[in-house]
Amino acid sequence: MTDPLPPGAVIGILGGGQLGRMLALAAAKLGLRTHVFDPAADPPAGQVAAQATRARFDDQEALARFAAQVDAVTLEFENIPPAALDLIARTTPVAPDGRALQISQDRLTEKDFLRNLGIATAAYAAVDDTDGLAAAIGRLGPSTILKTRRLGYDGKGQVRIEGDTGRDAAEALCRETPAILEAVVPFDCEISVIVARGRDGAVACFDPGRNRHADGILRETTVPAGVAPSVAQDAVLTAGRIVNALDYVGVMGVEFFVTGTALSVNEVAPRVHNSGHWTQDACLIDQFEQHIRAVAGWPLGDGRRHSDAVMTNLLGVAGPDWPPAPDASLHLYGKAEPHPGRKMGHVTRIGRQT
Amino acid sequence: MTDPLPPGAVIGILGGGQLGRMLALAAAKLGLRTHVFDPAADPPAGQVAAQATRARFDDQEALARFAAQVDAVTLEFENIPPAALDLIARTTPVAPDGRALQISQDRLTEKDFLRNLGIATAAYAAVDDTDGLAAAIGRLGPSTILKTRRLGYDGKGQVRIEGDTGRDAAEALCRETPAILEAVVPFDCEISVIVARGRDGAVACFDPGRNRHADGILRETTVPAGVAPSVAQDAVLTAGRIVNALDYVGVMGVEFFVTGTALSVNEVAPRVHNSGHWTQDACLIDQFEQHIRAVAGWPLGDGRRHSDAVMTNLLGVAGPDWPPAPDASLHLYGKAEPHPGRKMGHVTRIGRQT
Repeated sequence: MTDPLPPGAVIGILGGGQLGRMLALAAAKLGLRTHVFDPAADPPAGQVAAQATRARFDDQEALARFAAQVDAVTLEFENIPPAALDLIARTTPVAPDGRALQISQDRLTEKDFLRNLGIATAAYAAVDDTDGLAAAIGRLGPSTILKTRRLGYDGKGQVRIEGDTGRDAAEALCRETPAILEAVVPFDCEISVIVARGRDGAVACFDPGRNRHADGILRETTVPAGVAPSVAQDAVLTAGRIVNALDYVGVMGVEFFVTGTALSVNEVAPRVHNSGHWTQDACLIDQFEQHIRAVAGWPLGDGRRHSDAVMTNLLGVAGPDWPPAPDASLHLYGKAEPHPGRKMGHVTRIGRQT
Repeated sequence: MTDPLPPGAVIGILGGGQLGRMLALAAAKLGLRTHVFDPAADPPAGQVAAQATRARFDDQEALARFAAQVDAVTLEFENIPPAALDLIARTTPVAPDGRALQISQDRLTEKDFLRNLGIATAAYAAVDDTDGLAAAIGRLGPSTILKTRRLGYDGKGQVRIEGDTGRDAAEALCRETPAILEAVVPFDCEISVIVARGRDGAVACFDPGRNRHADGILRETTVPAGVAPSVAQDAVLTAGRIVNALDYVGVMGVEFFVTGTALSVNEVAPRVHNSGHWTQDACLIDQFEQHIRAVAGWPLGDGRRHSDAVMTNLLGVAGPDWPPAPDASLHLYGKAEPHPGRKMGHVTRIGRQT
C-alpha cells in the first residue's frame, strides 16, 4: 500500500470489543467506513460500524470475504491467530503486521526481542516443567511471577511466588502450558507510553502516563506521570526504538517499570491501549485517530496534550459514575452485561496543563 | 419521560446528515444506541448508527414503527413536518418538541416570538404580495433582504434588495411564496451562542463564537469571539431566555448581529449548529454530547472550553486540507459526492486558552 486511503474507504477491524468500537468512532470522524469482524453476537464495535461480519477467526471463507470487502485491515487485540492475518495479507494491506503480533503473543519471544535490542526487562527464564520452575526460581530469587507464555490478560494466567507461597499453583500452571518466570521488579511506579508510527516511518509519542493497577487490572492513568523529565524522555525513546525495530505501522502501548531513574519494559501491546484512553479528552488527536491515520497511510497528527488528565476505568456495573458527573467525560462501551472486573467504560477528568 | 435513559437505550434521530452523524457518534461515546430515520440511501449518519430506517417523513407507518423501536427521539434539522413529530410524540418522548420547531420553521413566527420576549431583531414586515413588498420597503428603507417564510437555508430562498437592485427577483419570490422582509442590520460582526437545556431545566452555554459567512454559508467560527465581555454575557443571557421561554430540551444555536455594544438575534436553530462544531475539539463535553445528554434526560456536562479554537468548513471537494495537516483536527462527513458549496467536513485548530 503506497497511496493514502481516500475518504470513504473501508477499514476492516479484527475484533469488536471496546477498542474496536473506539477505533470505529475515530475512523468515522475522518470520513472512513469500518467493517468489524468478530465471533460474538452484537459486539460493542458492531453498533457503530457501517458493516459487521460475525464469524470465527479460523473461518477462512469469512476472512477472505471480509478481506475482499475492505481497503485495509487492522486489529484491536493481539491474540488474533497469525494464520488469519496471513490469509488477509494475501489480498489486503494489514497493519500492524504479523511480526509484531507473533512477538507479542509469546511473552518469551517478546522478552528475547527486547533483550536483543538492549532494552532492559525484568530478569526472566523459560519454564517448561516443574524441574525448570525449580531451577528458574533458584536463579531469579524468591520473589517471582510465573506467567503463561501465551494468552492471559488483566492478571489472568499468572501466579505470584513469594518463597514457598504460590509454589503449588505455579507448579500446576507450568504442568498445563509453557510458561515464563519473571523476577519481581521492585518498582516505584508503572508508566506507559503510547507510540504511533506511520507508513512513512514517522513516529509520534503521547506523553507518558502513570498507571495504577489492582488485581492485575488497570484502574487509573494520570498524565503527566510525575517522573523526572529524563525518565519520561527515556521511555519515549525506548518506545520509538521498539516500533522502528519492527518497522511497525499503527499504535503500540509500551508499559514500563520505573525504579529510581531506571526503566524496564514490562509489556508491549501491538494495539491501542487502555492506558492511552486519556488522549481522547486531553489531546487534539487521540490514540485511536493516530492508529487509523497510520493504518490508512495518512500523516500522523499532533499528539501533544492540551490538558492534564486522569482516566479511571469503570469496572463491573457502571455505578456511581452514572449518570455522569458534569466535570467528567464519560465513555461507555455499549456492553449489556456487567460482571465483576469487566471493563464497562471509563471517565476522564482534565485540568489545566502543567 | 422522567427517568434518565439507561446505557444501551436507543435514541432515534430524524435526519441522517452530518449533524445526525455527529449526534450518533456522541451517543455512542455515552454507550447509547442510535436509530437514524432518513429518506436518503446511505445517509452520513447511517454509517455509524446501530440501525437505520429509509423512509419519507410523511410515511406514517414507518414513523410509527420507528417510534416503537426507540426510547426517545430527536432531530437534526428543523424542517421536519410537525405532523411527523406529533405522530411520534403519541408514543415516544421527543426533544426538542413541536413548539420550538413550529416557531423556527417560519421566519415571521420566529421574529414575533422574539419580539414578544423583548429581544431585539432586525426590523421586519410580513410580505404576501408585490403590493406588500412595496409597502414594506417604504417602511424598512432601501437596504433589505426578502426571505421566504419557510424553508431555505445557507442563503437559499433569499434576495438582497439595495434601492432598485434586486427588486425584480424579490417580486418574483414573493409571488411564489409568503415572505418576510428584513432591514439589513449594519453589524460589526456576527456571533452565535450554542445553548443547551436539560430536562431538569438546567441551562449551559458554550462561549460565543464569531462567525464569518460568505454567500450565505458559514465559513469559519473563531472562539473567543473578540467581543466585549458584556456583549458576550448579553448574548449568553438572551440565549438562556429563549430556551427557558420555550421550555426547550436539547441544544439550540442562536445567531446574533453585533453592532457596537448592541445585539440583535438573526436566527434561531432548534438543533446542534455548524457554528458549534469547534466545541468537539476545544471542550471536554461538546454540543453533540450536551444534546444527547439533554434528550436522554441526563445531567448536562461541563461545557467550558479548555482551548481557543478556529473551525473552518470544508465546502465542495475536500481539497488542500486532505490528507489533513498534523496540527488540525479533521472531521469528514462520509459524503460520497462533493459539489460546490456542499458541506463535506470541517477542520478545527486549537490554541492555548486566552
